[in-house]
Amino acid sequence: MASKENIHPQRTPIEKIGKSKLIERLLSGQDNSLCDNVSSYQNTGGSLFTSHTLLLEGTDFNLVYNPIKHLGYKAVITSLGPIYASLHTPVAISVRVGLSARFFTEDVEELWEGMSAAMREHNIEVSGVDLQPSLTGLTISVSTLGKQQKELFVQRKKVVSGDLICISGSPGAAFMGLQVLEREKRAFEGKDGLQPKLEGYKFILKRYLSPELDKTLHETLLNNEIIPSEGEFIAKGLSDAVKRVCHRNGLGAQIYLDKIPIASQTFNMADELGIDATTAALNGGDDMLLLYVIPLSDYEKLSKELPALDIIGHLTSAGSGTMLVTPDGTPIPLKAQGWSD
Amino acid sequence: MASKENIHPQRTPIEKIGKSKLIERLLSGQDNSLCDNVSSYQNTGGSLFTSHTLLLEGTDFNLVYNPIKHLGYKAVITSLGPIYASLHTPVAISVRVGLSARFFTEDVEELWEGMSAAMREHNIEVSGVDLQPSLTGLTISVSTLGKQQKELFVQRKKVVSGDLICISGSPGAAFMGLQVLEREKRAFEGKDGLQPKLEGYKFILKRYLSPELDKTLHETLLNNEIIPSEGEFIAKGLSDAVKRVCHRNGLGAQIYLDKIPIASQTFNMADELGIDATTAALNGGDDMLLLYVIPLSDYEKLSKELPALDIIGHLTSAGSGTMLVTPDGTPIPLKAQGWSD
Repeated sequence: MASKENIHPQRTPIEKIGKSKLIERLLSGQDNSLCDNVSSYQNTGGSLFTSHTLLLEGTDFNLVYNPIKHLGYKAVITSLGPIYASLHTPVAISVRVGLSARFFTEDVEELWEGMSAAMREHNIEVSGVDLQPSLTGLTISVSTLGKQQKELFVQRKKVVSGDLICISGSPGAAFMGLQVLEREKRAFEGKDGLQPKLEGYKFILKRYLSPELDKTLHETLLNNEIIPSEGEFIAKGLSDAVKRVCHRNGLGAQIYLDKIPIASQTFNMADELGIDATTAALNGGDDMLLLYVIPLSDYEKLSKELPALDIIGHLTSAGSGTMLVTPDGTPIPLKAQGWSD
Repeated sequence: MASKENIHPQRTPIEKIGKSKLIERLLSGQDNSLCDNVSSYQNTGGSLFTSHTLLLEGTDFNLVYNPIKHLGYKAVITSLGPIYASLHTPVAISVRVGLSARFFTEDVEELWEGMSAAMREHNIEVSGVDLQPSLTGLTISVSTLGKQQKELFVQRKKVVSGDLICISGSPGAAFMGLQVLEREKRAFEGKDGLQPKLEGYKFILKRYLSPELDKTLHETLLNNEIIPSEGEFIAKGLSDAVKRVCHRNGLGAQIYLDKIPIASQTFNMADELGIDATTAALNGGDDMLLLYVIPLSDYEKLSKELPALDIIGHLTSAGSGTMLVTPDGTPIPLKAQGWSD
């Protein structure tokens, strides 16, 4: 199984170095580490937000097409999303990794390389790292603490019907990137030495493999005195994110299909594979985009100052449900995995 | 495989109810829940501490002898330990559970029953719950946020050589409880309907299956104006905890073997199974005890006011290493898994 996986060819057993020494070695490259397993911070007032993620091999990622370094990067990004979505700034991160006997020191180092790249980009301290044995492949859990200044919390308006729903990028692109990788995996299965054909799909592949998260977006919002009343991280599909916001606030929503910024590579690849691009955009997962709910009164400012955000719909009263409005004006109930309505 | 496992006989597929509805149902029994996936707190100053754990089926627990409700209780306790050890009070908890197709709605409800019992006991709010599919059994990750008043942080003394090392209970008991369960599992393997012989081992079994954590201990310390300079949660063996404290502070330690409060049931069971009780006490794991480092100047007060804590040794200078002193006065280097020295 291991030969075609994106894990390191060199193989030093972790026991040879010792877990504690290995963790020390990982942290030594880090100029922003607090201390292994000490997660204490001075608290300066304001609001706190914790984000907590669990990534399981086989369901959340596949090492046949996820290079382990990219996976590390993406695991951290996945944890930061909810922090930014809630208008907090990430400050400290803790990582727990379960490793089966198929993983070696070099794999852990590559995973960490990706993780620390994301941590540096977002200027976060490491509050804890631990490695533990697993019978069943790779498991990654990340927990992140974010802070928000008191002033912001006080200024936020109540979420109301009519608020605008905005997103920070192109949903469905990551899902289509994954489809490219899965198609190439099937095509090359058993044919060692052949390189998969991935040219021409750069944008959608990057959205799946190492999606970046715009840390300046919420600062730009605040600098323009636009304070979202709500936010959500789009990681399990746009529909799921919209439903979460509605559920939390006891409201409904209308999303306009022709306002969703679906990328041309997403359309092209969907055509090629006979997949519906709209379904990919609504339920694809792995988008790693931010959804903000913004008061209607900020509409002008938003259109002028924030090209990075697309307005795709608005909140409605609870009774109206969560609907997708097709270009001809027909409302269809939004579906999402894990939601029974 | 499932027939002898401690999972619920009734089997309603989670998809039948829908993940979001199931989570809602779990939280509805909770009068102290914040909101699904919202993890925002008002921050009143002082110090914060986050604890983060990952429990993997097959290495951290086995459902053949871990009833799933007890497992839920223990998963929360495991997450609270580091919070109490660092003299913080837990305030909010987040849970992520990976479930393979062998688990049903009833299993999730039993797991949650154990979790919420621990949450109620320790008066913690739920900041997030999520369930996700897994290919490989049950995975539980818990992340907890704790707070500490500013005054305490300021009053803490620097950790120095000579400080006393104290523990809150009997190490090795949980490990011996696990040995009893593993012996009975082997004896009854394949013999459905027979009940394992577990009488007479109540103390050690409870220490393994549903260990309680004394939430009043750190309050008692503070009420008596004893402020530990350091703390550690004993979850992977006493030796490991001592080594962590020493490593963090650049110091050594001497632990006196005859001061370690090993329980008589631990000794008896060790004799029965031909295991060394000292090894169990030092490296057994799953103890769920608190280790506090307390300034030598508090020795009198400690002996008088805190019968719940046993002084088992003291810190030394770094050069002296982490040593176990046998009853005849011979120092032996402490060994712990994951440490190369």
